Amino acid sequence: MDNDIVLLAHGSGGEMSHELVEQLFLRHFDNPILARLDDAATVPVSRFTFHVSRSADPKLAFTTDSYVVSPIFFPGGDIGKLAVCGTVNDLAMSGATPLYLSAGFILEEGLPLAELEQVVASMAKTAEGAGVQIVTGDTKVVDHGKADKLFINTAGVGVVPVGAELGSDRVRPSDVVILSGTLGDHGMTIMSQREGLRFSSPLESDCAPLHGLVAAMLEVAPGAIHCLRDPTRGGLATTLNEVAGKSGVGIEVHEDAIPVRDAVRAACEMLGLDPLYVANEGKLVAFVAPEAAETTLAAMRAHEYGQEATIIGAVKDEHAGRVVLRTALGARRILDMLVGDQLPRIC
Amino acid sequence: MDNDIVLLAHGSGGEMSHELVEQLFLRHFDNPILARLDDAATVPVSRFTFHVSRSADPKLAFTTDSYVVSPIFFPGGDIGKLAVCGTVNDLAMSGATPLYLSAGFILEEGLPLAELEQVVASMAKTAEGAGVQIVTGDTKVVDHGKADKLFINTAGVGVVPVGAELGSDRVRPSDVVILSGTLGDHGMTIMSQREGLRFSSPLESDCAPLHGLVAAMLEVAPGAIHCLRDPTRGGLATTLNEVAGKSGVGIEVHEDAIPVRDAVRAACEMLGLDPLYVANEGKLVAFVAPEAAETTLAAMRAHEYGQEATIIGAVKDEHAGRVVLRTALGARRILDMLVGDQLPRIC
Repeated sequence: MDNDIVLLAHGSGGEMSHELVEQLFLRHFDNPILARLDDAATVPVSRFTFHVSRSADPKLAFTTDSYVVSPIFFPGGDIGKLAVCGTVNDLAMSGATPLYLSAGFILEEGLPLAELEQVVASMAKTAEGAGVQIVTGDTKVVDHGKADKLFINTAGVGVVPVGAELGSDRVRPSDVVILSGTLGDHGMTIMSQREGLRFSSPLESDCAPLHGLVAAMLEVAPGAIHCLRDPTRGGLATTLNEVAGKSGVGIEVHEDAIPVRDAVRAACEMLGLDPLYVANEGKLVAFVAPEAAETTLAAMRAHEYGQEATIIGAVKDEHAGRVVLRTALGARRILDMLVGDQLPRIC
Repeated sequence: MDNDIVLLAHGSGGEMSHELVEQLFLRHFDNPILARLDDAATVPVSRFTFHVSRSADPKLAFTTDSYVVSPIFFPGGDIGKLAVCGTVNDLAMSGATPLYLSAGFILEEGLPLAELEQVVASMAKTAEGAGVQIVTGDTKVVDHGKADKLFINTAGVGVVPVGAELGSDRVRPSDVVILSGTLGDHGMTIMSQREGLRFSSPLESDCAPLHGLVAAMLEVAPGAIHCLRDPTRGGLATTLNEVAGKSGVGIEVHEDAIPVRDAVRAACEMLGLDPLYVANEGKLVAFVAPEAAETTLAAMRAHEYGQEATIIGAVKDEHAGRVVLRTALGARRILDMLVGDQLPRIC
């Protein structure tokens, strides 16, 4: 590149846009579908049935998320890794095998190209690790001061085999609630970076692609997994409230059973935050029929991203639509959805 | 809504996010797929083959674009209409029937909710008119001064029947170059708004969904249409250069033949711009086998968005990779790709 910062001309659609696409994006996101650089990427529809040959009428899953996290680099990840994992995870929560991603960049004039390249390289590496291809993209540049470094949108498509019928409205009384690991790591990492806090054991984002974990779970307990959700913005408490509302059930969780790292707990105490409301980017909560709970848990613990999986509660037919927390002292309190704004620009 | 502006809490994932989704987005983008509000939308893969029953192995088309146009409201449209039309058009240029869109919003804290609602209502109306559904979405809020009112990303999926094999690399010598209408309307409308220019005949963006026009063309000339492109950022000159480069052909166009409205020409002269480099949002350029040119042209002229369609040139086997403009006086000059940045934030 001739220039070391992003210029408005990089978003013009003209020569400098082409240079950016060819010398930066295509070099990292190297695949023949993207390389055609047509207005839309095209892939055979049969590519969506190939993965699920036993499935008569598979479903296509389609999702989108924009990422505006600040700072854009943080321990355990960066906005690029987050943009790939977040969308892969949204697909995975529907039971889908993620296949293709789009990437839309909004760049602020003046962003160092070296930072953009670091983010793009991270996206490419994360996508490769997750087995997805970035097949179509777009770049816009806005004048300095009209965005904050860079924002990324990724949309994703994947295929859901017919066996996997998951949904927030499919949870039933007596389902077991399993959490895949510790809470609050991503959110408190970002907040600590922003506030300049340091702890003896450093905080690190849990940002990770979860579709492999989901596949391992669906493999051992097909039909018994009723709902999967990743507790991102709003945290576990908000996710549980959404599920309780949509399925019309009560959910009871045990405070003692919810794993939180010491450093996360310390950071939360210092900032007056509750880990139950803090965003996660590599965790899921599963609602599983009781007879399949132990099998599912074992499969999760055998997976890299589910080693600390644990049962945190159960679904009830009483107090429908509500989430109840049993505290360490045995008291019960209603756990509401997040009110107000705990942590802006966490993802 | 209790508040009349966008607050950071609207992006928290908590209660105010839910309120925004339910009271604003869901009310306008009303469809059962979106209404499930799961992490990903799911639709049967058979939905992608239904439209093309005669086609053995249809292709899925997938595209994305972010929209950062300023101002967000302009004569002939707004950022919401643009976000739907732009992505519909990217799908259409691949020959696809557009089916589903995603919508990712990045909102600046302080944006009046009434403006957001106006944009969302416009998206809903445009999507309905274009026969596409907005099935999945996301909203982020950034602090005041870290974005400019709102940015929208739309990704889209559609299905391409096997008959339509279109691409910038499929253009052949002797192909006829057809332009669907006047150049520069969108770009000069935005620039005039920004510069506060007024003309006796008012400028209006050409922003429109073109998939119906494309379908009408493919209906009468299947196989003879080699490439369709919409000349957005960088204008017709840049688009022609991309096609010349990818297909390894020369393209010759006649200045006289290219329709430009008087008001657009006047605005261009005032601002020192060339309409050949100005963005369009409701025009396409088609590369068509010569024997099908008249039939295609007739079909285009019979369509609402192709009434002013006209032949502007032809593909040559000489000067491969180059675009040559024959001027009104008979001179020939090389028409390069856009260099530098003519019009920032035009879309």
